[in-house]
Amino acid sequence: MKRVGVIGASGYSGGELLRILAGHGGVEIAHAISRSHSGRKVHELHPNLRGVLGIEFEDLPPEEVAGDCDLLFTAVPHGAAMDIAPRALDAGAMVVDLSGDFRFKDTSVYERYYGIDHSCPEVKAVYGLPELHREEIKKARFVANPGCYPTATILGLAPLIKEGIIENERIVADAKSGVSGAGASPSATTHFCMANESVLAYSPAAHRHLPEIEQELSSLGGSVKVSFVPHLVPVNRGISVTLHCFLRKGQSEEGVRRLYERFYEKEPFIRVLDVGEVPRLSAVRGSNFNDIGCFRVDMERGRLIVVSASDNLVKGAAGQAVQNMNLMLGFEETRGLRSIALHP
Amino acid sequence: MKRVGVIGASGYSGGELLRILAGHGGVEIAHAISRSHSGRKVHELHPNLRGVLGIEFEDLPPEEVAGDCDLLFTAVPHGAAMDIAPRALDAGAMVVDLSGDFRFKDTSVYERYYGIDHSCPEVKAVYGLPELHREEIKKARFVANPGCYPTATILGLAPLIKEGIIENERIVADAKSGVSGAGASPSATTHFCMANESVLAYSPAAHRHLPEIEQELSSLGGSVKVSFVPHLVPVNRGISVTLHCFLRKGQSEEGVRRLYERFYEKEPFIRVLDVGEVPRLSAVRGSNFNDIGCFRVDMERGRLIVVSASDNLVKGAAGQAVQNMNLMLGFEETRGLRSIALHP
Amino acid sequence: MKRVGVIGASGYSGGELLRILAGHGGVEIAHAISRSHSGRKVHELHPNLRGVLGIEFEDLPPEEVAGDCDLLFTAVPHGAAMDIAPRALDAGAMVVDLSGDFRFKDTSVYERYYGIDHSCPEVKAVYGLPELHREEIKKARFVANPGCYPTATILGLAPLIKEGIIENERIVADAKSGVSGAGASPSATTHFCMANESVLAYSPAAHRHLPEIEQELSSLGGSVKVSFVPHLVPVNRGISVTLHCFLRKGQSEEGVRRLYERFYEKEPFIRVLDVGEVPRLSAVRGSNFNDIGCFRVDMERGRLIVVSASDNLVKGAAGQAVQNMNLMLGFEETRGLRSIALHP
Amino acid sequence: MKRVGVIGASGYSGGELLRILAGHGGVEIAHAISRSHSGRKVHELHPNLRGVLGIEFEDLPPEEVAGDCDLLFTAVPHGAAMDIAPRALDAGAMVVDLSGDFRFKDTSVYERYYGIDHSCPEVKAVYGLPELHREEIKKARFVANPGCYPTATILGLAPLIKEGIIENERIVADAKSGVSGAGASPSATTHFCMANESVLAYSPAAHRHLPEIEQELSSLGGSVKVSFVPHLVPVNRGISVTLHCFLRKGQSEEGVRRLYERFYEKEPFIRVLDVGEVPRLSAVRGSNFNDIGCFRVDMERGRLIVVSASDNLVKGAAGQAVQNMNLMLGFEETRGLRSIALHP
Repeated sequence: MKRVGVIGASGYSGGELLRILAGHGGVEIAHAISRSHSGRKVHELHPNLRGVLGIEFEDLPPEEVAGDCDLLFTAVPHGAAMDIAPRALDAGAMVVDLSGDFRFKDTSVYERYYGIDHSCPEVKAVYGLPELHREEIKKARFVANPGCYPTATILGLAPLIKEGIIENERIVADAKSGVSGAGASPSATTHFCMANESVLAYSPAAHRHLPEIEQELSSLGGSVKVSFVPHLVPVNRGISVTLHCFLRKGQSEEGVRRLYERFYEKEPFIRVLDVGEVPRLSAVRGSNFNDIGCFRVDMERGRLIVVSASDNLVKGAAGQAVQNMNLMLGFEETRGLRSIALHP
Repeated sequence: MKRVGVIGASGYSGGELLRILAGHGGVEIAHAISRSHSGRKVHELHPNLRGVLGIEFEDLPPEEVAGDCDLLFTAVPHGAAMDIAPRALDAGAMVVDLSGDFRFKDTSVYERYYGIDHSCPEVKAVYGLPELHREEIKKARFVANPGCYPTATILGLAPLIKEGIIENERIVADAKSGVSGAGASPSATTHFCMANESVLAYSPAAHRHLPEIEQELSSLGGSVKVSFVPHLVPVNRGISVTLHCFLRKGQSEEGVRRLYERFYEKEPFIRVLDVGEVPRLSAVRGSNFNDIGCFRVDMERGRLIVVSASDNLVKGAAGQAVQNMNLMLGFEETRGLRSIALHP
Repeated sequence: MKRVGVIGASGYSGGELLRILAGHGGVEIAHAISRSHSGRKVHELHPNLRGVLGIEFEDLPPEEVAGDCDLLFTAVPHGAAMDIAPRALDAGAMVVDLSGDFRFKDTSVYERYYGIDHSCPEVKAVYGLPELHREEIKKARFVANPGCYPTATILGLAPLIKEGIIENERIVADAKSGVSGAGASPSATTHFCMANESVLAYSPAAHRHLPEIEQELSSLGGSVKVSFVPHLVPVNRGISVTLHCFLRKGQSEEGVRRLYERFYEKEPFIRVLDVGEVPRLSAVRGSNFNDIGCFRVDMERGRLIVVSASDNLVKGAAGQAVQNMNLMLGFEETRGLRSIALHP
Repeated sequence: MKRVGVIGASGYSGGELLRILAGHGGVEIAHAISRSHSGRKVHELHPNLRGVLGIEFEDLPPEEVAGDCDLLFTAVPHGAAMDIAPRALDAGAMVVDLSGDFRFKDTSVYERYYGIDHSCPEVKAVYGLPELHREEIKKARFVANPGCYPTATILGLAPLIKEGIIENERIVADAKSGVSGAGASPSATTHFCMANESVLAYSPAAHRHLPEIEQELSSLGGSVKVSFVPHLVPVNRGISVTLHCFLRKGQSEEGVRRLYERFYEKEPFIRVLDVGEVPRLSAVRGSNFNDIGCFRVDMERGRLIVVSASDNLVKGAAGQAVQNMNLMLGFEETRGLRSIALHP
């Protein structure tokens, strides 16, 4: 049994980490850290854990948690992680960070999009998307877990960029996310009456996840520019990205689909659907799958439509973090991640 | 008092017509036609009309309804309208048709996208988008009311096409509609458990509303091609279209906004929002307004984001039909259409 | 034209008052008071009012608003109203208070259920339920507008209490409210992800609206005790109360229904449905109607089921407040309140 | 490995059985029977099973399925089960029936509430609520799985009836269910636009689940009469029952809670919450837990409020059926049923 800790265990990603780790079997949750809820049972905030996980939130410094654990998850806001993660690494633990602080090769991009200075640009993490970086992750002590939007978007575009069949600087990614993606803190935006019966574009020109998408895709095939617009839709969980691509030349729909199938043939968590089949959120809700489908070609307009979907809290956050942990600690990659989605 | 009739009064558009006409003040609802519900009180299907409109559904031939009315609304499925509307016109009534049967200048486009032969290509209607065709509508006896997606999409793009500032053949319109847009008939798609907690792209390469959008926009500024993908989102009413445009050259956000303000300055039902403000469905729910906003420019990627939203059953269907009726019968254009949206 | 003001205009009830008053025709909205949003356009918080109501929120003392108005609405939290209302009355304006501060004949009941001392027990208001107190309201200068739960519950039970056909001390009122009833302030309870896909009982033994219900019903027919449990359900607007009553002796369902019809025969905003027909929220959403139906008798268990429903922001708050205003200022009672519900 | 089959595998309960059985580990799904979908992959209807369960729906007679299986689940409409189950039993398989056909000791009660004749009143099943009938179930070859409403309601009331502390003939059970409880067939009631933004009482005086509740509770403590009213609320999954009870004499809240704790102390799937804590649907969604909480006493009105909640498709249907299977086949009772609920 390996010992793990979660720093920032009271939020949605933190709670989801506890849910998945509690059913993992190969790890013990040694510490669930939450400064503001220290002393309360974890099930007071995450009622699904009642009778399943009896521990309490604690307020301990990163060094102490790290000293007692093999691996830490940091599920804290950006800006906070850049303080915590290096201290945990120095104290000897492996770290999977779920914030945006260590996702960028070029720190200046981070500073521009997040609007804050980076305190430790010299600390580098591996970008934790196993489908692109599995071998590096296996050897890493420090992994930056991708954002929910980038996971679904990069996975949906990677085969196209790799093959070079679309106009890389004219990609449109129109994304729709469940409200849990906005976090557990109450706000005007997340008030039920504002989010319900609504669909709302936000950060349409400069969302923080945009440069992360372009960084990863560019490494697969030259300069890539994405017109990325995220939307909040009135669902709890799930992310769906509609990718509008302009084809360089004619393609058959089945040919495009096969290209995805080949690219992902050994991937345990990528499902390539049939031509015309659009991923449903209920097919991924609560699971670590990312489904990719549609593959519609409209040659009159020279375009290709692909849709990529996953659960923003699982493959888009906690599930992928556990997938990275499995790779780092030498567990089978799918361990703890085989639960089937809830449909309906 | 003018006398009006609604053929196809039991569906959502039909019910919405009854709601709006019941509060109009200048018209009397002489007939509400529904073959399958003939003899039942209209409030049995539309419970909001209890105590407001005491009439029953009838099953009468179009000629008889037309002979007793100044104007008819045909809110029947496509294919059925091409039989009914000409008979009503011949019998002397004006007609506003809410189906797709008469929206196309080129009948072959209709036949290709709707997959049926047109029985009367010689019967021509005016395309009922007052913001583009007001003067023709005033003189028309027969108006083809636009679809919900085209209304929001065309209104959101018209000023850009007119000014020629975007790449007309690279437009992406990613649309999200409430489920009422799929009609009142129960189906697997409209089952609560399938539509709830879901967002689903459909007809991604060949939606019937696409050629209607391109027809109207092309008439404003040369060949226009739109990558249009509609989605069902879990809301009852409302449509929101995110328009991803590639700019021909640099533009200021405020400059783009002013362009819209000028284009729509005399329009009673178009509201141009501030730069950065995204239209909310709650600002248009139940009202005849179409709100246009966002106006974000990202020159690094050469793109402009505009969002256009309305209530698919009002400005996208019944409200616009009454607006057309007002123009055709000489009422003030806003009569019966001044009700304020329900927020939240 | 009468001049009216709204104190507490930024919340949901305040916004709904502005929506209804803006379409009233007989009044001018002289002041919309909000300390925290002073200087902002009202449509920045209530986007449905854009292009409809151009005024700004102001921060003025009650006396000043009262001095400039014929009637004030106080839509502020309980505790705050007991300070503001008397000052406005003293300054010469009529007042309709939407808080709980002046709804109780017995101030000690208020103090017990609200947990605060009442600063002016000598100031008395008429309980503003027109169906029970119309003549008093017409003569009143100060009206305490009922809560949303009491409105639907009292209206659903009044004919039964009056006739004495049920066990008055064994009444169960199981109520379900949309989340707008919890107010516009963000909180853990109103976070989308907590309220969505959820139904949650709250304050099951001591909700503040309970004594208000018992006070009014007892005045109709002796001691009444209600087991009242409110629930939050994932809808924006609407309240539905299922009344489980134990019959003193056998009754026919149609007989019970007629009893309601007689009791409410002259009421413009009460609709008595058919036996077996259950009120739908879509039949009242956005309207001032309160629908009452079901009327199922199960003599094997000696019980009667009645369901009462309305829009919590209209008949349950702002609409009823305007109805009271109409009575107080001598307008026709239904003025500004004839808009038809949005279905679906 | 035991071999099991599911007859009626295309509905929601059938799909949920496949989901749970696919992760069970001790059984092989030998047959998934669906006449109307025969030949299609199960993931075409249950997209969550893609990549997890590769079998196809078949159309085989019960005898053939039974001959090839140790145990069958019949998840077919009432009326159909009374034909299928006896044939499967005769062919040598054990059967867990999810319909209402075999839940009643007194067939005449069935015939009265379901409105059809029973074709084989001599075939008797054990009522499959393990918390009340575990030892009988272990020995049974034929188990009638309880309905979703009865499961939550009986579990919520059993300790009170057993102790005799409430008025047994004055119990009110006001229940709210997610729409999946109404089945997968499209209908006017389950249309998204009708169920969304709605809460609707149905079958208020004679729901089919009512006699099942009274049968089981009466066996614990004399004549029991329940005023049971079910409601549809706009959520996919989950059932919550608010129990309004009249106390025979004063009780402390903590005392009532302890009574539940003792009654259920060895139960793996019953969680007794703290006084004042109300069960959340997100705490049980996708899990086999039934949570019971609230325990509010209001002695002024002599009443006690208890709330009981579970996932209608899991503990209310497929999960409980697998729990019964585990008991019948000698597996550990919790096998395949340990997955943790999805919160949020």
